[in-house]
Amino acid sequence: MKKQVFKTVSLMTILLIVILQTNAQFRRGPRLISPQINEDNSVTFRLNAPDADNVAINGSWMPGYYGKQVDVAKGDSGIWSITVEGLAPNLYTYVFLVNGMRVLDPQNPQVMREGAGSDNYVIVPGKESEVYTVQDVPHGTLSSVWYPSPTLDKNRRMSVYTPPGYEEGDKEYPVFYLLHGAGGNEDSWPSLGRANCILDNLIADGIAKPMIVVITNGNSWSAAAPGEAPAGENAERLKGPGSGDRNGFENSLVNDVIPFIEKNYRVIADKDHRAIAGLSMGGMHTQTITNSNPGIFSYIGVMSAGLRNNPRFGGNNYDQEAHIKQLKALQESGVKLYWIGCGEEDTAKEINIALRKLYDDLGFKYVYRESPGGHTWANWRLYLSELAPLLFK
Amino acid sequence: MKKQVFKTVSLMTILLIVILQTNAQFRRGPRLISPQINEDNSVTFRLNAPDADNVAINGSWMPGYYGKQVDVAKGDSGIWSITVEGLAPNLYTYVFLVNGMRVLDPQNPQVMREGAGSDNYVIVPGKESEVYTVQDVPHGTLSSVWYPSPTLDKNRRMSVYTPPGYEEGDKEYPVFYLLHGAGGNEDSWPSLGRANCILDNLIADGIAKPMIVVITNGNSWSAAAPGEAPAGENAERLKGPGSGDRNGFENSLVNDVIPFIEKNYRVIADKDHRAIAGLSMGGMHTQTITNSNPGIFSYIGVMSAGLRNNPRFGGNNYDQEAHIKQLKALQESGVKLYWIGCGEEDTAKEINIALRKLYDDLGFKYVYRESPGGHTWANWRLYLSELAPLLFK
Repeated sequence: MKKQVFKTVSLMTILLIVILQTNAQFRRGPRLISPQINEDNSVTFRLNAPDADNVAINGSWMPGYYGKQVDVAKGDSGIWSITVEGLAPNLYTYVFLVNGMRVLDPQNPQVMREGAGSDNYVIVPGKESEVYTVQDVPHGTLSSVWYPSPTLDKNRRMSVYTPPGYEEGDKEYPVFYLLHGAGGNEDSWPSLGRANCILDNLIADGIAKPMIVVITNGNSWSAAAPGEAPAGENAERLKGPGSGDRNGFENSLVNDVIPFIEKNYRVIADKDHRAIAGLSMGGMHTQTITNSNPGIFSYIGVMSAGLRNNPRFGGNNYDQEAHIKQLKALQESGVKLYWIGCGEEDTAKEINIALRKLYDDLGFKYVYRESPGGHTWANWRLYLSELAPLLFK
Repeated sequence: MKKQVFKTVSLMTILLIVILQTNAQFRRGPRLISPQINEDNSVTFRLNAPDADNVAINGSWMPGYYGKQVDVAKGDSGIWSITVEGLAPNLYTYVFLVNGMRVLDPQNPQVMREGAGSDNYVIVPGKESEVYTVQDVPHGTLSSVWYPSPTLDKNRRMSVYTPPGYEEGDKEYPVFYLLHGAGGNEDSWPSLGRANCILDNLIADGIAKPMIVVITNGNSWSAAAPGEAPAGENAERLKGPGSGDRNGFENSLVNDVIPFIEKNYRVIADKDHRAIAGLSMGGMHTQTITNSNPGIFSYIGVMSAGLRNNPRFGGNNYDQEAHIKQLKALQESGVKLYWIGCGEEDTAKEINIALRKLYDDLGFKYVYRESPGGHTWANWRLYLSELAPLLFK
């Protein structure tokens, strides 16, 4: 009898869903499949836009990506579609442009957001994209954690990844501090960078050591990602990045974040079990932090960033002599890996060349990885998947 | 000397940002302020769309909301704008409709996503919206946690809120299981429902007891939210909600989730320290779980759901006699609070009336809360903010 009621109530639930979903269906329009990954790994994108004059698509597979677009063809019943051939296995972001306006694919719940811009994404399956794909492997825990920052005089939010088994065991782990770029926040590496997914997969395959990953918010004027910070921060936000305390973030990472992590998590608290890496602005933060604090990190990664000796930046009071002195102290402190990654068409390419020239001149050892493409999350995901296996070994 | 280099590198960072943000600016178009909250709490929304034929806005302040829209006026230089007056303090979601297509506000990084549909949001400040606004109060930790579900034969993802102080202390806490509706997942209550924000504020004000909140994924066919589940789940997703094991989710909550939480968190593991509530489909799940398992929960909340005795659902094998037997057993088990909430224009209103009529006929005690509006997150946020203070007291 009990079982029958149980079944009945479940049927009720299903029927209720049908009724209540009417609203949701209304919002989404007719049911289309988009994106559709075809057997040959081409991908078909479809959009229902009967009143549009023109529809295009902007996708991260396009060389240059930002601002690039390809026309989408109008078919029957106002359904526009395009099939993109020859996509290598990877994670691609895209958005429709309807009469020039950015429109998300209403059929695709997979969305990544950077700053105020959202894009859909699709993963073309294959060996190269496996590491970006959630697999049926043990998953770590991803937490939004608030911590006090006396340096910045506020409580701030970060993302912390603890590897599978952390909660159940009593083992101590190394810690990897992972920094985002301008326009990003503590959500960027987990969402756009798929950091927890990549770490889960690398750890499951035995390619990377189990580690804690600490993803900070590098905007010193900000407590947290948009919508997660206390009200009133908006006024500060409008001043723009870097408007806060000079070196506030860099100082707070050393003075606030590391002590908080080492007090509240089971970590191995020494140089050989600390790594730091960052992309773009985060690559500059990484340099500032490690140059000014030799002996804290044995593993250092700089992605799509470089040295400021580029004439585009105009006059400055850069002190090369002092910089060199810092680098020598850093080298003497015993860096096990200094990893530099940059895209072939990266907007940071030129200043990256200048950085490497200085290091070469000094005999400052580093590993260099250049990859096709530009200043993109496609490259930073790739770099994370290649750098994480080199840490703590 | 060290300090000077530190300053210099920081200046480098800022200049680098300017260069590298060119891409981001390209994507976002010219700098506008939108939404702008004016001194009288009216809100101005602006969109740069020089080529659009018509622009409208759909906002949750409009009666009926879904499918409703108001025209936005075209001004100089292709900037469209509208000022909405007389908005009561609350959190409002909105989206532009450009030539009929849903377009997110490119100036507003605050986005909420439900299923495949994303909306921007804005909070009109005031006493009534304080509870939905991130305040400078102690914040709990929100974690994405994977757990084994032998009942559903997969690992699954849930969101767990631990209150401020949990990590540092050794106190044991009561647990509130909070269930989403059709189309939702384990991210819905934290994002659309602002559950962790609401709990932070209520706990800081001493209005709610510190508690752990466990937010499950009620789709038994699914491991996790879109993009977070292992590849291959998509095929199952397309079968639609409820295609999985009948009562799979309800059974798994009792057999898998509660034991996992009580093993891995510091909880008070008895009936008087367990609460459960759900909205819509989650309200049906709540009924199934509590009706079939008397003596597990002392606090029960049913939001925007009801009894299936509505002719719209057609013929069924509902067994009222068995249902009544269950309710009597539940009542005898000692329920301290049975809370029912429903909107005045809720799509679930009719079946909710039927539910309450049955309870009234049986003398089954409950507290009823009816609020203006319909089957919306505005109501579910309100219900959470009113129900949480009543728990564990």
